[in-house]
Amino acid sequence: MRSDLFTDEQELFRDSVREFVDREVAPYVEQWERAGRIDPKLWRTAGEQGLLGLAVPEDFGGGGTADYRFRCVIMEELARVGAASVNVALGGFDDLIGPYLVDLGTEDQKRRWLPGLCSGEKGAAIAMTEPGAGSDLRGIRTTAVRDGADWVLNGSKTFITGGGRADVIIVVACTDPEAGSRGFSLFVVEGGMPGFTRGRALEKLGQRAEDVSELFFDDVRVPAAHLLGVEGGGFGHLMERLPKERMSIAYYGLAAAEAALRWTVEYTKERRAFGRPVAEYQNTKFTLAELATELDVTRAYLDRAVLALNEGRLSGIDAAKAKWWATELQQRVINRCLQLHGGYGYMREYPVARAFVDARVQTIYGGTTEIMKEIIGRDLVK
Amino acid sequence: MRSDLFTDEQELFRDSVREFVDREVAPYVEQWERAGRIDPKLWRTAGEQGLLGLAVPEDFGGGGTADYRFRCVIMEELARVGAASVNVALGGFDDLIGPYLVDLGTEDQKRRWLPGLCSGEKGAAIAMTEPGAGSDLRGIRTTAVRDGADWVLNGSKTFITGGGRADVIIVVACTDPEAGSRGFSLFVVEGGMPGFTRGRALEKLGQRAEDVSELFFDDVRVPAAHLLGVEGGGFGHLMERLPKERMSIAYYGLAAAEAALRWTVEYTKERRAFGRPVAEYQNTKFTLAELATELDVTRAYLDRAVLALNEGRLSGIDAAKAKWWATELQQRVINRCLQLHGGYGYMREYPVARAFVDARVQTIYGGTTEIMKEIIGRDLVK
Amino acid sequence: MRSDLFTDEQELFRDSVREFVDREVAPYVEQWERAGRIDPKLWRTAGEQGLLGLAVPEDFGGGGTADYRFRCVIMEELARVGAASVNVALGGFDDLIGPYLVDLGTEDQKRRWLPGLCSGEKGAAIAMTEPGAGSDLRGIRTTAVRDGADWVLNGSKTFITGGGRADVIIVVACTDPEAGSRGFSLFVVEGGMPGFTRGRALEKLGQRAEDVSELFFDDVRVPAAHLLGVEGGGFGHLMERLPKERMSIAYYGLAAAEAALRWTVEYTKERRAFGRPVAEYQNTKFTLAELATELDVTRAYLDRAVLALNEGRLSGIDAAKAKWWATELQQRVINRCLQLHGGYGYMREYPVARAFVDARVQTIYGGTTEIMKEIIGRDLVK
Amino acid sequence: MRSDLFTDEQELFRDSVREFVDREVAPYVEQWERAGRIDPKLWRTAGEQGLLGLAVPEDFGGGGTADYRFRCVIMEELARVGAASVNVALGGFDDLIGPYLVDLGTEDQKRRWLPGLCSGEKGAAIAMTEPGAGSDLRGIRTTAVRDGADWVLNGSKTFITGGGRADVIIVVACTDPEAGSRGFSLFVVEGGMPGFTRGRALEKLGQRAEDVSELFFDDVRVPAAHLLGVEGGGFGHLMERLPKERMSIAYYGLAAAEAALRWTVEYTKERRAFGRPVAEYQNTKFTLAELATELDVTRAYLDRAVLALNEGRLSGIDAAKAKWWATELQQRVINRCLQLHGGYGYMREYPVARAFVDARVQTIYGGTTEIMKEIIGRDLVK
Repeated sequence: MRSDLFTDEQELFRDSVREFVDREVAPYVEQWERAGRIDPKLWRTAGEQGLLGLAVPEDFGGGGTADYRFRCVIMEELARVGAASVNVALGGFDDLIGPYLVDLGTEDQKRRWLPGLCSGEKGAAIAMTEPGAGSDLRGIRTTAVRDGADWVLNGSKTFITGGGRADVIIVVACTDPEAGSRGFSLFVVEGGMPGFTRGRALEKLGQRAEDVSELFFDDVRVPAAHLLGVEGGGFGHLMERLPKERMSIAYYGLAAAEAALRWTVEYTKERRAFGRPVAEYQNTKFTLAELATELDVTRAYLDRAVLALNEGRLSGIDAAKAKWWATELQQRVINRCLQLHGGYGYMREYPVARAFVDARVQTIYGGTTEIMKEIIGRDLVK
Repeated sequence: MRSDLFTDEQELFRDSVREFVDREVAPYVEQWERAGRIDPKLWRTAGEQGLLGLAVPEDFGGGGTADYRFRCVIMEELARVGAASVNVALGGFDDLIGPYLVDLGTEDQKRRWLPGLCSGEKGAAIAMTEPGAGSDLRGIRTTAVRDGADWVLNGSKTFITGGGRADVIIVVACTDPEAGSRGFSLFVVEGGMPGFTRGRALEKLGQRAEDVSELFFDDVRVPAAHLLGVEGGGFGHLMERLPKERMSIAYYGLAAAEAALRWTVEYTKERRAFGRPVAEYQNTKFTLAELATELDVTRAYLDRAVLALNEGRLSGIDAAKAKWWATELQQRVINRCLQLHGGYGYMREYPVARAFVDARVQTIYGGTTEIMKEIIGRDLVK
Repeated sequence: MRSDLFTDEQELFRDSVREFVDREVAPYVEQWERAGRIDPKLWRTAGEQGLLGLAVPEDFGGGGTADYRFRCVIMEELARVGAASVNVALGGFDDLIGPYLVDLGTEDQKRRWLPGLCSGEKGAAIAMTEPGAGSDLRGIRTTAVRDGADWVLNGSKTFITGGGRADVIIVVACTDPEAGSRGFSLFVVEGGMPGFTRGRALEKLGQRAEDVSELFFDDVRVPAAHLLGVEGGGFGHLMERLPKERMSIAYYGLAAAEAALRWTVEYTKERRAFGRPVAEYQNTKFTLAELATELDVTRAYLDRAVLALNEGRLSGIDAAKAKWWATELQQRVINRCLQLHGGYGYMREYPVARAFVDARVQTIYGGTTEIMKEIIGRDLVK
Repeated sequence: MRSDLFTDEQELFRDSVREFVDREVAPYVEQWERAGRIDPKLWRTAGEQGLLGLAVPEDFGGGGTADYRFRCVIMEELARVGAASVNVALGGFDDLIGPYLVDLGTEDQKRRWLPGLCSGEKGAAIAMTEPGAGSDLRGIRTTAVRDGADWVLNGSKTFITGGGRADVIIVVACTDPEAGSRGFSLFVVEGGMPGFTRGRALEKLGQRAEDVSELFFDDVRVPAAHLLGVEGGGFGHLMERLPKERMSIAYYGLAAAEAALRWTVEYTKERRAFGRPVAEYQNTKFTLAELATELDVTRAYLDRAVLALNEGRLSGIDAAKAKWWATELQQRVINRCLQLHGGYGYMREYPVARAFVDARVQTIYGGTTEIMKEIIGRDLVK
């Protein structure tokens, strides 16, 4: 069924995004993947084009529109060319880090960090996960101890998307070990602060162009003015922003799967086996029919969720449903699409092959499928 | 996520339907199932309450509203008490047979048949399937040969829902064996016509209160005025009405699964095993979370499909997607809900047990899942 | 792959079993199902034919062979004609109750109960489950209190297979509420003992010819000589015999699924749709190929398990694997076979329809799939 | 259940293989994967150790034992350390190419090619697949035309495992376009023959250390003495050897999945989340229980198949069942194991991550899952 999510305004926006993606992204994806990094120039081009910080107020260099559908358009256009790494990098700022700065930042903080991030001159990251803790934020061991006008940070983080190149890093640290979930706070660490070092980029199965790094904090002195939000309120700040992050993962998941199906329909119509197009075999037709149905069904849910997000009424539970469902679907769909490509599906030059490995982390980061089910299930039986 | 399908108007209607179902249906479901028939009095009560022929113009005794959401309300309320047989019987007229008479009937035909059907004094059926043909309508062997002012029908039909009690039966017959798909026409046979006999009611796994019968036509003389629609246009007439029939099967599937989940959440919260409520086990929570997610996702699609149906733009392909997806989901969900009931889930006194067998035919009648995938797949690769 | 489980000896035995089943069982299955009981004459005929108590020593009227493969032959032949109820009734004695009497009974006890059970004059049952407890034996509330030369039993049981007709009933009761798992003992209650009454037969989805009943014990005085095994050792006795019970459920599950596949291959080869046999559609071929593969793979495991059982080295964990896997497979296979039968698959006159509802309890009784996974998983991570 | 496949003889052999793998393979796997090639020295070491050409007669430098269980031992030991590329390289000679030379080769041919291959000085490949043909051998377009004492080969091949380094390449070519399936023959092309060139190594998702290449034949003159087997008998030669090839893919699939489960049990026992080991969560236990069961069940089937292969009675259909089932299982198992590793499962330094991408081609090469089902299904409904 036709989605009715987008208005003409978004479709116009899509034209310019598509043009940007075709010109600045698509021709380079493979080489960035191979190199393990996206050309940093891309951020500046994206910034000029107005694709960074869509929801950031114009005063601070952003797009000034909170309508999430514009973000959806960007995700779809990147998924169309299989640029998952680029999507993660862009979305990391817009859907994950930006909201912290916009919602919680003081005027000074916004003025200090947002313009450079919106112009693409600077990169951002958020550092939650620690080696021993995974999705369990209560296990965070990084500490921040007040010392005069500063906080002194000690600890280490891992799996930090964009951590290798970020200039502005939001770090979750424990400021009061006695206070339970009220003992965590957010700090902005800047690249170059003494005691802050970056570990190697981790070698991932997919999304290789976007670095995921370890970060180390060894007596890093952070000025008190870098405390973001309320002291001791870190957990609450995180919880409030999770739905948007999860929606962005879910939405890219759907968009990536829709793209893979389109590639596969084309491929099976052209590719012949045993004398006729692969698409004409009943098994192929049934497989494509199943995938198309699942995608359409899921599209209806995500469209509804996007509108709820726009209106500020997307609950954590509904976002959790979107997150696990759409990303598991993404993997299932792309896996079956790959299979229909035969041997070519295993070759990195085919986008479906890259989409397969790019997708695999989607059910893990941002909260695993298991965490999502725990959240949903707990609410059901309470 | 909250569905936004219904307006206050439908919710008001729901109150009266619920009251009707609680008073006239719920207390008797089990005994009707055991007896293999619904008390015919129910139809008159339903007729009085205005639950029959919602979309039939008021002139002919109907409700005069084409808004499909009222039908959805009725389905949900019947699913709530596990009254699948009653739903099939009611829906058979409103979603399947009624549209033929309303859309194709002449003024005389409408006047002759609709009022009695809307008041519940008469029952209706449509006779397509034949013993040798299944979903393949081209395999129909029942013939109608013109003889003076009459048509003479010969042949037999099977799997005819409501066939045992119907007074008004739309019969698909071949009127021109040379004309291919343009060789079929529709006739209305009335109970009591000479040569028309009914076979035994078939013993089904579920939905036992609603008869499904064989019908035999042995030189049945049908007046020419009983031809419904265009001679030779039978196939077209059928095709145009399939989306609505399929939507009604899909929607009841979803409603039945939603009801089963509600029962199961309640059951597992009350039932204890090894010292604590079954609902508190992680496996239970995850299972419920998975079912709740799938149902919410599907709900979004069906809501969208209902609105499309209302606006006359639900395609056959989208209806096919709704049909196979929602009914397969229904079986999957109810099957897992039954399992969570342990031994009680196998006992007919538990509604989830009956819902399990009631559901099993949903992926078969109205076009099997395989036919739906063929329809969708063929369109994708064309 | 060809199974190599059976020797010529078993194949000879199969000939006589098949002849018995074709003559004494197959023609009556449907009427027994409809009547909700198996003609009691069958037990005597089976006893005469030597099909009851195969592993019971000849001295006590049994077959004197512990080779489980003979039981497998019987299960396969009953599955072949869809006689699940008869299988449960027969297997209840041979695989479930018989072993308790043979292994734990005193000479007097064996002499008192075994001959009548082996000849088919008497029926047996084992009463573990209670309304509030399900698979959790520790929740048993039925008590047995010593009073002079007797034990006085009070409590109630539910879901007791064969409970309605059993003359010899092994009852699990708590003899020492302080002793934890060492506080349960087994007693043989005989039909007709004062205070012992039977509730109604429960109305089940399938296996309707074999009664499953509630039993009530109201100050039932059981002579001390009816204590079976060691006082306080009831749990241990149960645990030791679970693997055999579970194997019998698993094996029938496989046999039933194999039979369903054979019916379906035949059906789809004969049945035509859209001009050619259903079997020739790629979707049918693929479905049948998947089912045949899963069955062959599972057959290899169960063959291996049968030999291990014969040699007394089938562990509880391996039996748990066999149980959940084979019964879930059974449901999956029969469900898909039913679908390939189209509308006929929903009609009780088709064996695949009955097999579908007969199968549904297999993942529940004898320990649910969830309990099996708990057993296996706990062992893996210990 | 304990497998009883191996005798003491194989277990002794395993000790030496394990020692070899731990010393010569495990420490280098990651670097070979990164480099895209296995150090060629490995082949000589393997040859010296007697791990190449196990079934090749001792006269020609091989191990002289046709007992396939020795090959199984090697596969298990390589799977244990996640060395899928090495397995493909070793198995390519022993299970795929070797049998052609041993069974079809003349005394001269064997003497010319086998000793170097068994000593590891030379590498082998078989070139069937062509860019346009995939699993459909009838689509082969490479031609061999007789010209005096030579055959002149023209055409190209793709997806040739080991093609980049092979010195001895069996090429399937069409020798008589009019003769249908009797028109194909096998030729041995040697590295360095004029007109024979190799394309680039294809960039694969996994198994990156083993090259998969394109090969081009441009008027390559092959001496008549290089015809392998019967002229026009190529197809028959291929068909006869497919079961062994498929068994080797299936067996490695099982071994790789078994290894992944072992890693995951260890990992989840050590890794803590929310205050306790991941292994103690019911979802983890159930997942592990499901995987362990599926693996045990499949193990029983493959053990049976290995013995059948040893006895020369493994049919093409049974090999097809083993192939698709075990490789689909492998992917399913490893996918779920990866998920239980959380973020670490996505990092190439964890063997489960590499195993995930290594596995993905297993349902494609050697005949796709779809081809396997076609073979099995066609036989069932014939």
